[in-house]
Amino acid sequence: MSGFGEFEFIARLLAPLSKGHAGAFALKDDAAVIAPRAGHELVVTADALVAGRHFLESDDPALVARKALRANLSDLAAMGATPLWYMTSLVWPLGTDRALQARFVEGLKADQERFGLTLIGGDTTAGEGPFTVAVTAFGEVPAGKAVTRAGARPGDRLVVTGAIGDAGLGLALARGERALDGEAAAALLERHYLPTPRIALAPALREHARAAIDVSDGLVADAGHVAAASGLALALRLEDMPVSPAAGEWLASQPDEAAARLRLATSGDDYELACALAPERVDAFIAACREAGVEAKQAGIFGAGEGVTVSFEGRTLPVERGGFTHF
Amino acid sequence: MSGFGEFEFIARLLAPLSKGHAGAFALKDDAAVIAPRAGHELVVTADALVAGRHFLESDDPALVARKALRANLSDLAAMGATPLWYMTSLVWPLGTDRALQARFVEGLKADQERFGLTLIGGDTTAGEGPFTVAVTAFGEVPAGKAVTRAGARPGDRLVVTGAIGDAGLGLALARGERALDGEAAAALLERHYLPTPRIALAPALREHARAAIDVSDGLVADAGHVAAASGLALALRLEDMPVSPAAGEWLASQPDEAAARLRLATSGDDYELACALAPERVDAFIAACREAGVEAKQAGIFGAGEGVTVSFEGRTLPVERGGFTHF
Repeated sequence: MSGFGEFEFIARLLAPLSKGHAGAFALKDDAAVIAPRAGHELVVTADALVAGRHFLESDDPALVARKALRANLSDLAAMGATPLWYMTSLVWPLGTDRALQARFVEGLKADQERFGLTLIGGDTTAGEGPFTVAVTAFGEVPAGKAVTRAGARPGDRLVVTGAIGDAGLGLALARGERALDGEAAAALLERHYLPTPRIALAPALREHARAAIDVSDGLVADAGHVAAASGLALALRLEDMPVSPAAGEWLASQPDEAAARLRLATSGDDYELACALAPERVDAFIAACREAGVEAKQAGIFGAGEGVTVSFEGRTLPVERGGFTHF
Repeated sequence: MSGFGEFEFIARLLAPLSKGHAGAFALKDDAAVIAPRAGHELVVTADALVAGRHFLESDDPALVARKALRANLSDLAAMGATPLWYMTSLVWPLGTDRALQARFVEGLKADQERFGLTLIGGDTTAGEGPFTVAVTAFGEVPAGKAVTRAGARPGDRLVVTGAIGDAGLGLALARGERALDGEAAAALLERHYLPTPRIALAPALREHARAAIDVSDGLVADAGHVAAASGLALALRLEDMPVSPAAGEWLASQPDEAAARLRLATSGDDYELACALAPERVDAFIAACREAGVEAKQAGIFGAGEGVTVSFEGRTLPVERGGFTHF
């Protein structure tokens, strides 16, 4: 291929990203050595992105790198973990040139600086298929403090961070499916290409939440996973679902607000957090989120039973498809 | 696709493989929680296999699963680590049917039982390319006892476990490139499809070795990596390189034994260990290997300088290509 050789790619481009961790052995060894600090546990997650499915072949490789990292960081955030390290397994299409490889590594570098991560290992190969990026990310929590999906109790409130549906609208724009004017369109595209994992909220989550999930398959599906894992039902109120000004502009242009909000609630890749909180914790959690620069909003309630009921201004909506699945 | 849906595949086929670890949350959560035992560290490695490059499209998916696990276990073994957990990121070709997916999971199950592993997470998707399996594997070592590539000293002996070159000959047979008679051919094919990671030798490695690597790119290349990481030269004697009876049979049929041994020493996927040992530790290490059921043999010496000199019965051989690279 016209790109770097395997060893050169690792030594020249990737090894500098491993400097922050002695146990990465400058990516020259068979494996990395890691340990949590005393009194802590590690949280570990893996997510793979494939060109043509999770991003467009024509997307900037730096953005692909950053999105791959952020998808994993979002999973760590939902567990209340502080990110520490990551590994990448890369499958380059045959013939990928050096400039694209270097651009991908620029994206890794930008986000590892932004989020305080260090590359500790991985694998690099090439194949007769689309570019594939598998990331494994590691974070840390105080022992026993990881937030899972299964802890919600009847009466707990569903609180949702940030804004739902922007990434889905951004994807539609990226595909040229619909037009929206300049500023709003730019904001939505940014949220599609560069979602912000809510790792800044991990401490607040650990302190206040009984359960949480990151919203990657759509709010209805993901909040439903919390309900199911906790053995509960969920009543989700779409009028209370947080939306961005840009999505609000799009909503205003839609003939049926209930249907439009349902579309936002069933589109993927928001990377927001959906949390279950005891009623008396809601205000403190929302205040803690605000202090970290993120708005959060109460948008539902967990109760006995099963399944998700979605309503808009008191009217129950039929939900055909809860969210995105990757097959 | 005609296979299982993403959630069904995970819930029905993969979740049962996670039973051994409570922190895997039955694969229902965003991430897994892990920690080493007190006084220990974790060792973590990632390796991706792509159809058409690392295995044949027509290979039995169960063997592909086992080989993917074993490639990673071999890396853990080379660090002196005891394997504990693994994660898989799978990219299925569009249209893969359920029987193939189930067969793949059978392979995971067989080897996780054999090697005492538990599945703790991962990701499952589909794409317009070849089947891709990215594995991240986790092991444990007593704190500070991981064996790296960088610890060899001048005068240390190179000791090689098992037999070198079988997998390369097995690959040639699998491709129909050469004929060898029944029993020997079967043995070589087995070593190609199902290499044995030397995890049984991890304790002996930790006790005796100053440096080690697993032989995946060819003995010349990999032993050379130990020399380079340790800032040393290596003199490798091909007449002392351990070979199997089946490879011995092939060697006997070759016109030029030096060239034939060099081919064995530069073919990949042996998953043996190449170790640097102080001279006074060699006998104890070889005895400890034998106790664990594996022969090991002294086949070289590290010294001041750099590079690998390969000789056969006193004659230095020119080496054009040290081993396999994945680009």
